[in-house]
Amino acid sequence: MDMKTVSTIDALRVDGDRLWRSLMDLGAIGATQKGGVCRLALTDLDKQGRDLVSAWAIQQGMTVTVDQIGNIFMRRAGRNNDLPPVMTGSHIDTQPTGGKFDGNYGVLSGLEVIRTLNQHNIQTEAPIEVAVWTNEEGSRFVPVMMGSGVFCGAFTLEHAYAAKDTEGKTVKDELARIGYIGDQISGDHPIGAYYEAHIEQGPVLENADTVIGVVPAVLGLAWYDCVVTGFESHAGPTPMAIRRDALQVATYIMQEVVAIALRYPPYGRGTVGSVQVMPNSRNVIPGQVTFSIDLRNVSDATLDSMNAELDAYIDKLRADTGLGITLQRVSYFPPCAFHPDCVSQVRNAANMLGYATMDVVSGAGHDAIYTARVAPSGMIFVPCKDGVSHNEIEDAKPEHLEAGANVLLHAMLASAVVVS
Amino acid sequence: MDMKTVSTIDALRVDGDRLWRSLMDLGAIGATQKGGVCRLALTDLDKQGRDLVSAWAIQQGMTVTVDQIGNIFMRRAGRNNDLPPVMTGSHIDTQPTGGKFDGNYGVLSGLEVIRTLNQHNIQTEAPIEVAVWTNEEGSRFVPVMMGSGVFCGAFTLEHAYAAKDTEGKTVKDELARIGYIGDQISGDHPIGAYYEAHIEQGPVLENADTVIGVVPAVLGLAWYDCVVTGFESHAGPTPMAIRRDALQVATYIMQEVVAIALRYPPYGRGTVGSVQVMPNSRNVIPGQVTFSIDLRNVSDATLDSMNAELDAYIDKLRADTGLGITLQRVSYFPPCAFHPDCVSQVRNAANMLGYATMDVVSGAGHDAIYTARVAPSGMIFVPCKDGVSHNEIEDAKPEHLEAGANVLLHAMLASAVVVS
Repeated sequence: MDMKTVSTIDALRVDGDRLWRSLMDLGAIGATQKGGVCRLALTDLDKQGRDLVSAWAIQQGMTVTVDQIGNIFMRRAGRNNDLPPVMTGSHIDTQPTGGKFDGNYGVLSGLEVIRTLNQHNIQTEAPIEVAVWTNEEGSRFVPVMMGSGVFCGAFTLEHAYAAKDTEGKTVKDELARIGYIGDQISGDHPIGAYYEAHIEQGPVLENADTVIGVVPAVLGLAWYDCVVTGFESHAGPTPMAIRRDALQVATYIMQEVVAIALRYPPYGRGTVGSVQVMPNSRNVIPGQVTFSIDLRNVSDATLDSMNAELDAYIDKLRADTGLGITLQRVSYFPPCAFHPDCVSQVRNAANMLGYATMDVVSGAGHDAIYTARVAPSGMIFVPCKDGVSHNEIEDAKPEHLEAGANVLLHAMLASAVVVS
Repeated sequence: MDMKTVSTIDALRVDGDRLWRSLMDLGAIGATQKGGVCRLALTDLDKQGRDLVSAWAIQQGMTVTVDQIGNIFMRRAGRNNDLPPVMTGSHIDTQPTGGKFDGNYGVLSGLEVIRTLNQHNIQTEAPIEVAVWTNEEGSRFVPVMMGSGVFCGAFTLEHAYAAKDTEGKTVKDELARIGYIGDQISGDHPIGAYYEAHIEQGPVLENADTVIGVVPAVLGLAWYDCVVTGFESHAGPTPMAIRRDALQVATYIMQEVVAIALRYPPYGRGTVGSVQVMPNSRNVIPGQVTFSIDLRNVSDATLDSMNAELDAYIDKLRADTGLGITLQRVSYFPPCAFHPDCVSQVRNAANMLGYATMDVVSGAGHDAIYTARVAPSGMIFVPCKDGVSHNEIEDAKPEHLEAGANVLLHAMLASAVVVS
């Protein structure tokens, strides 16, 4: 092996065509008519996908191990194998009508990093691993981000094992059935640094015509159910002045949700996604309206403030209108700030490579949220078409995927240290 | 027969207990567990109800005839039977979960007028008739107000005959089956004046603690479907500034519907009763929202103005937001002003009787809308509990029903002219 100069290392690039072919090959397993993928966690198709990716890793001389929750770790040795590995990864399970890139890109860009290192005979000080986390999507089994959640201690192995799909089949039985219940103890596996490449699943990069998103944080979220109770009455005989129209009152709250988010730029988000009107009849004034509220921001403090403004608004509206209004918080995921070192490595790598970058917070959850609890972690985003994900029409450009993998390569090399 | 003085006539009163007993007896046919009635048009139960009411009329010495659409006319002769009859009536079919009073009260208060006249040996110049109109509710067969609609030429007999229920049974076959397809030509039957007593089906009288509603008009209504099309995207990754949130835009239209109605007092009504959000998922910004709009007012001119304001608002909102907004008018029922003479007779009768009155427009349709096309018509409203109708819990007070029947009695006597 020749000693590599800095300029030789800086010139290293992944093979974008090879990465694209792997994405298409894996996407063929569970391919749908509309160009997407249906490969639910722990199904026969998931097993086929795991088998294929593991075989690719073995072809690259990697060691493949599996832990108790079915997470796969594909390891390339370093010079000092007592060091914790520099890890990348994501998931290969999909939504029922999912795409070819969500998750799969994170795993296969990791594999492409390995292939590139092997091709160029690069040795690193620390070992490098590519993780395939079990059941990130949560479509078949809840909780979501199950494999990384168990690995990082967010919940117990037993809790995850007991989760059932709609047919009553458990995670434990299904893991055993497809041959992916390993003996490695989940989490007994230190990580030096963790990077995850992912399509953005939002429109920010595409709108800004920017290739690389540096991800400083993942937004926390608070979910609420709001119920407005008025009085159901006929649209004709009931004069405006004496109506108790639950929908009209609800519309003011729906607008306030957006107004609150706009008062917390740049990361505040406020969404009403789901509405049920009772009795939902054309000529009946709604007696009750139930709707969801989704508030997000980058810190607990801002989320608390947004929550307080929502409470205050509803208290005033309740007093002003006399209608019944209840607000119940049904879910809370805390914000997650990524490690400054990992964020810097991503930014530096992109800058060295000459890619335009911008900071983009992640609005959706990823396995990196959980790895951030046990190791310095960071993410790399690339654009996806129209910001659409969790959809069969999810799409991304080969050159963007290649760019993201190059950033992943150089961020990982910076963490793992090239020795020859 | 003795000649009656004005004071003797003015002292005439119906028998409230007798009226209440008839309401309860008729309400027993199709009675529901919750105290309501299910007696759909042209069912066996409808036949039982028709038979009972007809038998009561024959007991009172009335002549009973049936026309081609099954309308029943129960006639008490006058001194001059060449005069067109002074008519009252309503319907005895009900909603699937209907009440004992809607419609039934109009027929049985008419019968109570006849019983009172017979009891006191009152002769009128013009004959008096009580009509039972076929299928007013429209629950089983569309169009609604079918019998009076055919009678008054709103649509053809053939159109009504061909209407089918959900099992494919036609009006014509079902009329024949229950023995109520008459040979009298529908509409070949002049009317001198028409009065209809009805529960208000709204909360105005009850809220004002007033016994008698004088009904100057029935509101016209325009129904619309509005569709707002934005772009469906994830609630987390999509910043506020670049959202195309169909629900947020829809809420502004929903509020404008109410604002428009408030700009057209006292009879303007604006209601959004039905909303469908797509995809209606907690963490997805709505891509499309479809909702109904119901505008009502007392004249074509005001309804046209309300329509124009809605159009203008939507045009501006479309330009301001760039979202797709379509507004389609799906139904229009023109307003109906009742005849000033009939309105005056109702008011005068109530004043003479010492009942508190107020003007209350009808927000719902009634057979009197169609009779108004062929004869001077008017209506009398009495309060119903909480304004609730089309519901098994529909309720009304015996003393209010009695008061309404007394007003009906004296309004009809003023039109029919007492001669002895």
